[in-house]
Amino acid sequence: MSVTLVIAGLGPGSSDLITPEVEAALADASDLVGYGPYVARVMAREDLVVHASDNREEIERARQALELAESGRRVVVVSSGDPGVFAMAAAVFEAMEAGPPSWRSLDIRVLPGVTAMLAAAARVGAPLGHDFCAINLSDNLKPWSLIEKRLRLAVEADFAMALYNPRSKARPQGFARALTLLQEACGDARPLVFARAVSTDEESIAVVPLTEAQPEMADMRTVVIVGSSLTRRIERGGAPLVYTPRSAAA
Amino acid sequence: MSVTLVIAGLGPGSSDLITPEVEAALADASDLVGYGPYVARVMAREDLVVHASDNREEIERARQALELAESGRRVVVVSSGDPGVFAMAAAVFEAMEAGPPSWRSLDIRVLPGVTAMLAAAARVGAPLGHDFCAINLSDNLKPWSLIEKRLRLAVEADFAMALYNPRSKARPQGFARALTLLQEACGDARPLVFARAVSTDEESIAVVPLTEAQPEMADMRTVVIVGSSLTRRIERGGAPLVYTPRSAAA
Repeated sequence: MSVTLVIAGLGPGSSDLITPEVEAALADASDLVGYGPYVARVMAREDLVVHASDNREEIERARQALELAESGRRVVVVSSGDPGVFAMAAAVFEAMEAGPPSWRSLDIRVLPGVTAMLAAAARVGAPLGHDFCAINLSDNLKPWSLIEKRLRLAVEADFAMALYNPRSKARPQGFARALTLLQEACGDARPLVFARAVSTDEESIAVVPLTEAQPEMADMRTVVIVGSSLTRRIERGGAPLVYTPRSAAA
Repeated sequence: MSVTLVIAGLGPGSSDLITPEVEAALADASDLVGYGPYVARVMAREDLVVHASDNREEIERARQALELAESGRRVVVVSSGDPGVFAMAAAVFEAMEAGPPSWRSLDIRVLPGVTAMLAAAARVGAPLGHDFCAINLSDNLKPWSLIEKRLRLAVEADFAMALYNPRSKARPQGFARALTLLQEACGDARPLVFARAVSTDEESIAVVPLTEAQPEMADMRTVVIVGSSLTRRIERGGAPLVYTPRSAAA
């Protein structure tokens, strides 16, 4: 049986960061499903049907992909970055579990990609070089109190942190509260990395001490990396390097 | 100035998971530096000097790469997976910071890759589809007490977890202790994924309830993914799908 539903990661932006596995799946697809700006990254061709949708419609998009696959189409759902990290893969499995039993017998495959935090980390050095966590700062699908709890516990564990979806027009206040929490809980000037649209023409990177970080430094296309207490800056003129050593004491 | 030192991620094993960016860097290299089994994954050519070393020699390897780059060679240091996740990038920056000031002016670039946990997650579904953490279980460079502290806090935060380097011949006991800790702290049968050598000929994947997990299920080539309390199995005959829903309550 050939694979009928692929959930593929396009990486953070540059075509140089798309794996050959994903390129092959795209070349073999009959139907492409995804958020508008992501499907726009795939080269158009006459025999590829494109189904672009809005940002907030993940479950509807997932159901559409499952229906198309069941009807015999070769469907690729595209996500930016890695599809398993705050992206479409979980939405597809939620829709599958809630949907008709026949969907469970579809041949489905997830193809990994370079997720935003890894591309962002690479740009500045190795801030995720020791234990770390990844937290989605959007409170669309979980209460803000849970986000705050996780931030506090992550500080206590001394994880470096990658913060996805830090700020949007619909949620301007959350990231400001997160920054205040981190400033109070950490009590130091550890490096923060604001990495926007990494590997695209609009890429911008800033490294600032936690004490000087401002909410406006992030938007929806930014991933924020918060150093652990051990994260270091190497000054060398121009942009510093940022890395977290492999070693830690008790 | 051309880039003289590249730290590149080869992905988890298959050449289908190496980014074009990394392939281009490898094609342009004069010298290849890395752990033996990783440099062996790069196609040999007459004008490529290969410097293979043992597993435990990260800092010596990093110094060698920096020295070669300073001497004018075009050096690529290779890691499996992503070089910034429990791999060579942090080691190179440690060596740079401790080394001669001239090393800081080298043109250095980190090229991200598909890290093991993302490839492992993709194989079973989307177990990292909600907030998660990544912990290196090796206590070569940090005390075991810190690992246990982080595991407890990760359970309290209800993160899914990716556990790297769970077990080696030199450290047979740590993973057994980690499993016991998780079984006691979680108190449920959440899914664990044992993903060994993903995307290679030796790949094997097992999904077991935490209550039935055994230390012998992991070795040094395994990444272990521990679900959160919300992680679900979708049964469908044969191997189940495993995913963590995007939503969570307080």
